[in-house]
Amino acid sequence: MIEDKNQQRTNLSDLGEFGLISHLTKNFEIKNSSTLKGVGDDAAVIDFKTKKAVISTDLLIKGIHFDLSYVPLKHLGYKSVVVNLSDIFAMNAKATQITVSIAVSNRFPLEALEELYEGIRLACEIYKVDLVGGDTTSSTRGLIISVTAIGEAESKEIVYRDGAKENDLIVVTGDLGGAYLGLQVLEREKAVFQVNPNSQPDLDMYSYIIERQLKPEARKDIPPLLRELGVLPTSMMDISDGLSSEILHICEQSGVGCRLFEDKIPLDPQVISTCEEFNLDSTTIALSGGEDYELLFTISQKDYDKIKGNPNLSVIGYITNKEQGRYLVTRSGEAVEIIAKGWNALK
Amino acid sequence: MIEDKNQQRTNLSDLGEFGLISHLTKNFEIKNSSTLKGVGDDAAVIDFKTKKAVISTDLLIKGIHFDLSYVPLKHLGYKSVVVNLSDIFAMNAKATQITVSIAVSNRFPLEALEELYEGIRLACEIYKVDLVGGDTTSSTRGLIISVTAIGEAESKEIVYRDGAKENDLIVVTGDLGGAYLGLQVLEREKAVFQVNPNSQPDLDMYSYIIERQLKPEARKDIPPLLRELGVLPTSMMDISDGLSSEILHICEQSGVGCRLFEDKIPLDPQVISTCEEFNLDSTTIALSGGEDYELLFTISQKDYDKIKGNPNLSVIGYITNKEQGRYLVTRSGEAVEIIAKGWNALK
Repeated sequence: MIEDKNQQRTNLSDLGEFGLISHLTKNFEIKNSSTLKGVGDDAAVIDFKTKKAVISTDLLIKGIHFDLSYVPLKHLGYKSVVVNLSDIFAMNAKATQITVSIAVSNRFPLEALEELYEGIRLACEIYKVDLVGGDTTSSTRGLIISVTAIGEAESKEIVYRDGAKENDLIVVTGDLGGAYLGLQVLEREKAVFQVNPNSQPDLDMYSYIIERQLKPEARKDIPPLLRELGVLPTSMMDISDGLSSEILHICEQSGVGCRLFEDKIPLDPQVISTCEEFNLDSTTIALSGGEDYELLFTISQKDYDKIKGNPNLSVIGYITNKEQGRYLVTRSGEAVEIIAKGWNALK
Repeated sequence: MIEDKNQQRTNLSDLGEFGLISHLTKNFEIKNSSTLKGVGDDAAVIDFKTKKAVISTDLLIKGIHFDLSYVPLKHLGYKSVVVNLSDIFAMNAKATQITVSIAVSNRFPLEALEELYEGIRLACEIYKVDLVGGDTTSSTRGLIISVTAIGEAESKEIVYRDGAKENDLIVVTGDLGGAYLGLQVLEREKAVFQVNPNSQPDLDMYSYIIERQLKPEARKDIPPLLRELGVLPTSMMDISDGLSSEILHICEQSGVGCRLFEDKIPLDPQVISTCEEFNLDSTTIALSGGEDYELLFTISQKDYDKIKGNPNLSVIGYITNKEQGRYLVTRSGEAVEIIAKGWNALK
């Protein structure tokens, strides 16, 4: 949080719109043979061959989705890509291309945008996707990032939200609640820093949850893992708003009910200890925290043996018929109705 | 410009994010068989079969790209879609789907967004494209619209910017300069209105150019027309920044030069008369005005007979080798070097 006053500042207007785009994207390499034309024409051209195309889009706004006082721009660029790729993996598809549009105030120096694009480039590198287009424009203030993620899948592999059936098992990848708690730690440190700019925070004990917030990863590994295990989920989505909100979406669209078990919800030890420190209920955080970008899916009971014991996957409940409602069974055996308390972008 | 003080105002927060998306998109019908899944899952699913996919994206910001004091929201929604579809037609492709993401301040009433989406719906209807996804979020102020346009084409039909060859003819559709002049008229009326809110402007004599600004149309008709005529352009792009900026892009990417002829540039009579009134040079306006969303393309000389006399198409010059430079030949026979003075989004 210490600003380097000697950093170089190049005015964006020195480059102009076309110079800026080509400057920012010059280190991006095309990695997918399906990308016939990337940046530089009116549109990108992609060859999906016999596969189906999967397309998702998101808009991130400074001050709403991120706070530049503690989100490094490189992390922000990385995260903007990753959260979109998560939607592609949630269709059980392979991510192949992205487009990125940004609007920035002229007060942003070129070097700041280079940082942002370095994060975008890194995500493209790690997730093996091609940047194929975008738009660069000015805003009266702040920073706006719009990402469209593109992927491909065989028709029979695509998993929607509406296929969950009674008695299916509910499975979640990884662990939950970390990203939200990481944000709480960062917000607290920001408040401390504003009071005492010389404070040197020791954040080692929060390293996992801070990374979950600042540099989340999308579950690129899950679609190939499921293929390898011979499991085709009956429904799937990613956890961006929070487990409770997402399971209600699956129930709503599939016309079913559910039972989740509190004691089955996977929590990292750092989530448990930080919840204690902040006096927060870890189940509430896991249910409503959001931004974990894990995958939530349902599978037929007959597939249970295939996933059993896999450290990436936790069975957290099962699907019921609609009339049985949507409940969380607590550690004490009480059934509590699940209500969406996910992060509401318009609150 | 007279506000109806009795209009209904519903707070956005009354609906929440999910309620808002489904409310705004409920009147949208799927029209293309390639749309396997539209709004409502993590991503849209599209079947391009043997065709190639063409994808383009744009970001529009209130205060930079539009002024809500004279741009009705319905027109804005319509235009946001149309300017993106223009990029698809500029690849000689058919537009099939769009995604639309918006960020709005909570101060916007629901009724304003309904107006915006009514314009988006109308554009989908007229251009026969499906709305298949998007994102709705809040901004600290103003309105941000991000549109991704998706299209399809046979591989051999796609036209890039880099194929122009020496001696090719340079062709433009429609007429140029109208959209920019329409904006000048609207800006003047806004200034008059601010001084005297009771003024009743008579804009009949500017109807064509105001429509070019507020409700532009993209040249959906040109790819099928070219197919019908048996003409495959060697290069093509759409005119969003201005003729001079766009022809320089084609020359740059194709590694060629050009000669444009001032007396061949197509102008509407209303453009000529309004230029006289505003004491502006009509050629400068046609070259640098921008936002006309006509198509600029090059064809082999052997195809001249096929397009000759078509009222939609004007031959305005020819391609030279690179060493001969890029010049406009004026009415008096003087050769003036073409410099990009297109609208610069980062000026």
